[in-house]
Amino acid sequence: MNVLSQGREGWHVSFVMKHPLLLCTALVALCAAAPAPSPAALAPVEIVAAAPVSDWAPIAQADLLVMDLAPDAKGTGRRVVIQLLPAPFSQGWIGNIRKLAVAKWWDGTSVNRVQDGYVVQWGDPDGEDKAKAKALPEGLGNKPQDQYIETAAAKPGCSSDFCLEDPTPEQWFKAGLRSDPYAAGTGIYQGWPLAHGKKQNGLYEVWPIHCYGTVGVGRDYPPDTGSGAELYAVIGHAPRQLDRNIAVVGRVIEGMEHLSSLPRGTGDIGFYKTAEERTPILAIRIGTEVADLPRFEYLSTESKSFAAYADARANRRDAFYIRPAGGVDICNVPVPVRRVP
Amino acid sequence: MNVLSQGREGWHVSFVMKHPLLLCTALVALCAAAPAPSPAALAPVEIVAAAPVSDWAPIAQADLLVMDLAPDAKGTGRRVVIQLLPAPFSQGWIGNIRKLAVAKWWDGTSVNRVQDGYVVQWGDPDGEDKAKAKALPEGLGNKPQDQYIETAAAKPGCSSDFCLEDPTPEQWFKAGLRSDPYAAGTGIYQGWPLAHGKKQNGLYEVWPIHCYGTVGVGRDYPPDTGSGAELYAVIGHAPRQLDRNIAVVGRVIEGMEHLSSLPRGTGDIGFYKTAEERTPILAIRIGTEVADLPRFEYLSTESKSFAAYADARANRRDAFYIRPAGGVDICNVPVPVRRVP
Repeated sequence: MNVLSQGREGWHVSFVMKHPLLLCTALVALCAAAPAPSPAALAPVEIVAAAPVSDWAPIAQADLLVMDLAPDAKGTGRRVVIQLLPAPFSQGWIGNIRKLAVAKWWDGTSVNRVQDGYVVQWGDPDGEDKAKAKALPEGLGNKPQDQYIETAAAKPGCSSDFCLEDPTPEQWFKAGLRSDPYAAGTGIYQGWPLAHGKKQNGLYEVWPIHCYGTVGVGRDYPPDTGSGAELYAVIGHAPRQLDRNIAVVGRVIEGMEHLSSLPRGTGDIGFYKTAEERTPILAIRIGTEVADLPRFEYLSTESKSFAAYADARANRRDAFYIRPAGGVDICNVPVPVRRVP
Repeated sequence: MNVLSQGREGWHVSFVMKHPLLLCTALVALCAAAPAPSPAALAPVEIVAAAPVSDWAPIAQADLLVMDLAPDAKGTGRRVVIQLLPAPFSQGWIGNIRKLAVAKWWDGTSVNRVQDGYVVQWGDPDGEDKAKAKALPEGLGNKPQDQYIETAAAKPGCSSDFCLEDPTPEQWFKAGLRSDPYAAGTGIYQGWPLAHGKKQNGLYEVWPIHCYGTVGVGRDYPPDTGSGAELYAVIGHAPRQLDRNIAVVGRVIEGMEHLSSLPRGTGDIGFYKTAEERTPILAIRIGTEVADLPRFEYLSTESKSFAAYADARANRRDAFYIRPAGGVDICNVPVPVRRVP
């Protein structure tokens, strides 16, 4: 049977056309008006497919981290493309990650841990053994843990590309995002899901969150915060308990399946017991250093198309559904990313 | 680095002991008292490990569905154990599933779809081709879609093992489960996560929900609701938009990795393009028909140990954490299940 034919499109948009596409302008009105599923309503993936080119925003090659794993058993290459989080979030760790990539430090390291429903982790398999650990490049300081969280002030005059001052968290994209169990509020701004605390003295705590595909920095027990040499990607239900406890540095935008389908670890918490089980990492580079890297773009979270997409994620009215949910959680509204057509 | 060493224990409990265990009775007070992380506080997995035998409840073999996939490339067997949802939920479909298992209908079918971050789906690969579809056993009716939802009355006198009348949804286990974007409320009762609507005229709508590992019934477009011959398991972030739109019939309690690590589909929405890519299903049986099946038990969701475990899921205070979340979503409190020691 044709189960779930209007499935989650995931990080890389697939195009499953089942109904004639409508113009997004018409669509917004249609979705807003329709209280129940209708054969005429579009699925989120169809709304994304119908988005005009002007609703897509480019992702700079300089903000991509490209990981090439050893080819699979059939000899097929396995490339994972990670988009790094923009300023002001986690920039201390991201600066380290850029230095590690330039130094080609990860080349010859491996994926060492795959814990089902939780994370895939990579880096130096001997990282915990002081005698055998691979030396890190110069100048990778241990960042303070207060940098897991940023502070936003509700005042004007900010001009940065990813300014937390204007718009304030109240002005982030929040349509369909009902109450969140982990934060005072969540929203999507400039392409990234964020959470914030209660407003106090005109200030908010703001932090990036853990969703499926999120990439973060492995660390030891506090006060250690990790250098960025040890990274992980989420392969299960969003482990939001990690928010504010560890540095989030980006998200996988292509090749997620090369991590999520790896054999699960044979030891405690998913670490492989033997070196043979690990997946070798051939190279990790910044996007600008990868000659054959395609261009990527994301559906602008400030666009009408994204508003219609998020509304459809919160209220499925396409033909497969009979009961719209009436809401959605922040990790169930993945920002559509695709190769530039 | 020893990242995330207090990781999600998942459906099958692993035992990562990092601190001396305290008695659960002492623990409950400790957790309730501690406002911030403390080296003395236990991780959820440690609370589970410390739970007394009396806090574990048996799972009947008759309520298990055992799926044996073809051995992997190394010749290792791949067994997936599914616990079926108890009455009153989805019993029409579960009755069909029992008939299909008794008829050995699934033997020789296959896993036909693996969509990253969404679902793994199995059954007859030719199910949509009327000419080639495998004939179903007699008496598998199409169940009405109103059976996706049960109605609970807030009145006493119910004595069933899984009664929705007493306790009422207000009395379900809800500690740490803050607001839910998809329902008026969620809770855990008799080992299962449930959602409910607003109380109206003394009645509630109550339904089982989709979390990582949840098993549901594939179907075509409404009014079709599926027979139960086509099943799927969730392998990504909880697709709660499916709640009330499709029949939830159980959850994977062992062998989840044999589904979640399968190669992703090569065609639209994760279906394999060629027959060779599918994973053969050797057999699916009800637990009572499987001679070598171990006994399973779950941590009673009415026990003090579960209360302490859920509190720790909502407020991590063990040594790895610096900032407890202050809440948790229903799918981030997986009910611990283990083989009977």
